[in-house]
Amino acid sequence: MDIQLKNKLLKNDRDYVWHPFTQMKDYEKQDHVLIEKAEGIYLYDADGSKYYDTVSSWWVNIHGHSHPRIRAAIDKQMSEMDHVMFSGFTHRPAIELSEKLVEITPEGLNKVFFSDNGSTAVEVALKMSFQYWLHLGKKEKNKFVFLDNSYHGDTIGAVSVGGVELFHSVFKPLLFDSYKVSSPNPFAWQQKGVSEDEAVSKCLDEVRSLFEEKAEEIAGFVIEPLVQAAGGMIVYPSSYLIGIRELCDEFDIHLIADEVAVGFGRTGKLFACEHAGISPDLMCLSKGLTAGVMPLSVTLSTLKIFDAFYDEYETFKTFFHGHSFTGNPLACAVALENLKIFEDNKVIEMIQPTSKYLQQRFPEFSDLKHIGNVRGIGMIAAMDIFEDKAKGLNYATNKRTGYQVYLTGLKHGLIMRPLGDTIYVWLPLCTTIDDIDQILYKINNVLIDLELA
Amino acid sequence: MDIQLKNKLLKNDRDYVWHPFTQMKDYEKQDHVLIEKAEGIYLYDADGSKYYDTVSSWWVNIHGHSHPRIRAAIDKQMSEMDHVMFSGFTHRPAIELSEKLVEITPEGLNKVFFSDNGSTAVEVALKMSFQYWLHLGKKEKNKFVFLDNSYHGDTIGAVSVGGVELFHSVFKPLLFDSYKVSSPNPFAWQQKGVSEDEAVSKCLDEVRSLFEEKAEEIAGFVIEPLVQAAGGMIVYPSSYLIGIRELCDEFDIHLIADEVAVGFGRTGKLFACEHAGISPDLMCLSKGLTAGVMPLSVTLSTLKIFDAFYDEYETFKTFFHGHSFTGNPLACAVALENLKIFEDNKVIEMIQPTSKYLQQRFPEFSDLKHIGNVRGIGMIAAMDIFEDKAKGLNYATNKRTGYQVYLTGLKHGLIMRPLGDTIYVWLPLCTTIDDIDQILYKINNVLIDLELA
Ligand SMILES: Cc1ncc(COP(=O)(O)O)c(C=O)c1O
Ligand SMILES: Cc1ncc(COP(=O)(O)O)c(C=O)c1O
Repeated sequence: MDIQLKNKLLKNDRDYVWHPFTQMKDYEKQDHVLIEKAEGIYLYDADGSKYYDTVSSWWVNIHGHSHPRIRAAIDKQMSEMDHVMFSGFTHRPAIELSEKLVEITPEGLNKVFFSDNGSTAVEVALKMSFQYWLHLGKKEKNKFVFLDNSYHGDTIGAVSVGGVELFHSVFKPLLFDSYKVSSPNPFAWQQKGVSEDEAVSKCLDEVRSLFEEKAEEIAGFVIEPLVQAAGGMIVYPSSYLIGIRELCDEFDIHLIADEVAVGFGRTGKLFACEHAGISPDLMCLSKGLTAGVMPLSVTLSTLKIFDAFYDEYETFKTFFHGHSFTGNPLACAVALENLKIFEDNKVIEMIQPTSKYLQQRFPEFSDLKHIGNVRGIGMIAAMDIFEDKAKGLNYATNKRTGYQVYLTGLKHGLIMRPLGDTIYVWLPLCTTIDDIDQILYKINNVLIDLELA
Repeated sequence: MDIQLKNKLLKNDRDYVWHPFTQMKDYEKQDHVLIEKAEGIYLYDADGSKYYDTVSSWWVNIHGHSHPRIRAAIDKQMSEMDHVMFSGFTHRPAIELSEKLVEITPEGLNKVFFSDNGSTAVEVALKMSFQYWLHLGKKEKNKFVFLDNSYHGDTIGAVSVGGVELFHSVFKPLLFDSYKVSSPNPFAWQQKGVSEDEAVSKCLDEVRSLFEEKAEEIAGFVIEPLVQAAGGMIVYPSSYLIGIRELCDEFDIHLIADEVAVGFGRTGKLFACEHAGISPDLMCLSKGLTAGVMPLSVTLSTLKIFDAFYDEYETFKTFFHGHSFTGNPLACAVALENLKIFEDNKVIEMIQPTSKYLQQRFPEFSDLKHIGNVRGIGMIAAMDIFEDKAKGLNYATNKRTGYQVYLTGLKHGLIMRPLGDTIYVWLPLCTTIDDIDQILYKINNVLIDLELA
């Protein structure tokens, strides 16, 4: 891109745009990276520099960027029907997508409610669960349980079940009351001298105690299956999820699986719940649903929940929720093509060797002086930066070590976006073993540059 | 479409899809209308029947469906870059769109924050306003004021400032406390023998009293400028809006204009606030932003608000809010093309005669036996159905007269979606005078069929 155009755009970015999750003052010294082209696993900036998109653009991209099949699918849909309202009306892309989703998601999830992003998918699940109990005459069952460090989105309902203090605590006066329980974070427990298995049973005991005391007022338990992503890429054992499913059954509480981040293959299986062999009562999907191309989300529910809303109009049991673009045909057509690519390219089979390779090689970073707590699953791998690894001591917040990794990563052709001092990769499913070699090599160089090696 | 395919799709729709704002039991007797094609102002069902989209598919469509220029714009964007995360990175479509939006919106709105739908745009505005006062050390200023009958979306924050009992009351235990004030609904006041001007001053007095007593704990006043849409197509005088702007200034309270529905020309001006000549502190846009093609929204803010978040990272004044697809390049490219069509086709000029014609002709329905309270502005016109017009008496809810209008409308080639007993049109801006003639003629026949004439 022409240097003058680039400078003008960057000036206008500073003048007019307010970026998400961003202290805009940071951009006095450092421009945002102006991305001009996205293709496959690469992003290209305005100077033509090429970067590995190691975070799948906030965990959304699946088959690589600007995929020709997706492009064709959008164009075909656009030639027939851009959009139509989804109340009183329906259309083929949404119906076919719903059928497919019911087929591929865990058993028992039979109804598909559309919305636009991960946050709204969670809001829909919370509201459905809440209203379900109301229809059953149990209006006291109106509270939710969530894990410490969990992240379910940024709308007020989603923030109310959020456990990341940095993002969520400031909005406290606007949130509804919920119950927070301990995260089965293996590393945090290990720091306290508790083994992984013990940690799981301690955490489950805590939930059992809460349920024993409060089940009468608890509607649902909302959880990110297997990986607490925004909370710091915490990977926890599937035994915890199995235990939670059992407790929810025992105490008649909905299990709400938020697979917005982990869904669509990222953990090595199509859905993370499969690792535990469980079916939730409500399940939220977004991000990878459209292969990371455009916003769309769904909340799947069981028939049991659906049936509690099914009655004569006059009983006012309708689920009064909807968004202007609910079931947007373009987004549905993209999602359908995404799922066809999954099938045609046998993507889940394809990622078995690559994810295995990633999980084998990533622990090599443990050897580095300032790196510890290496963990991962599927195409996700993470590690933490420590000032003093032996003592488990982090760097002071104002060193912003994670932010330095982002900046240094750019110089090495990597797009990385550490969460605090957690460095991670969240790879597109099309990443090859060669790509992984390249990416790990470059990450190593970043760590050397920053004297973290 | 092949009859077998059609039947299969409708069966699958019943089996797998949970439609928004819909009592699904209604579809035991009556299938959803399966739409197959959308072009210009028309939608076509699976049997090839053609319908006027008189509601712009839930108030989103602007230039007609499946517009070739929009199609080309998506395809071009898709050939370059589908999506990239918007934190640490930026791109031309979002920057150019932001520049344009700052240029065309009321003065003083200088910063653009992206999200995905109308609800999230409102959530962003509420959270920004809330956090602004916090940064100013006024943490008691954390409540919001909204109008009776207002609708701002379906996420918990947006529902908390919603005033439509049917949709909102059930979720009460999850909502934060807000202050509701009377709507300046001219018809409702007239029923009580109060003139329009008097109603406005009564309503403003009510707000003044509230502000005098509670300004210390009020962050913002959120309002749908000029038309309360989902609350029943209530059109109120711009003098009310002017008064609210003055009161907000006097008592140091943010005015949040939710132009999600009325923005982009629907009221005859590009933004409804222009009728009152006012600038809000925060403004929400969605729906027509992408010409009704796909989800995207923005919240615009003043520099004053933005500046209160602008500081060293360590002060933790960052606005911690974001969505996976924030600033989605495809949606931004569509929105940019939408605005270019506005300019190239001089759309605002073009709708002056058509909207004038609509507003001249719609009142003819007042002559019908069961029709009253005819009102409108720009491309929006509405009327109410009464069992006894003189007494202002509605039909019993279980008659579902509005629902009958929807069903009968279909037979006449009209897509209508009454809100309770309010029949309305919300026309695409490309609607011609001939189209209006056709649509009014057909509506009249619907009313005759239902013995409402
Ligand atoms: C005025 C207004 N605000 C907000 C919304 C919510 O927008 P969405 O449905 O896209 O979430 C709507 C939707 O109809 C609306 O009319
Ligand atoms: C687990 C989880 N749930 C919900 C969300 C919210 O999704 P969105 O940002 O699309 O609103 C996210 C986003 O990162 C997520 O990781």
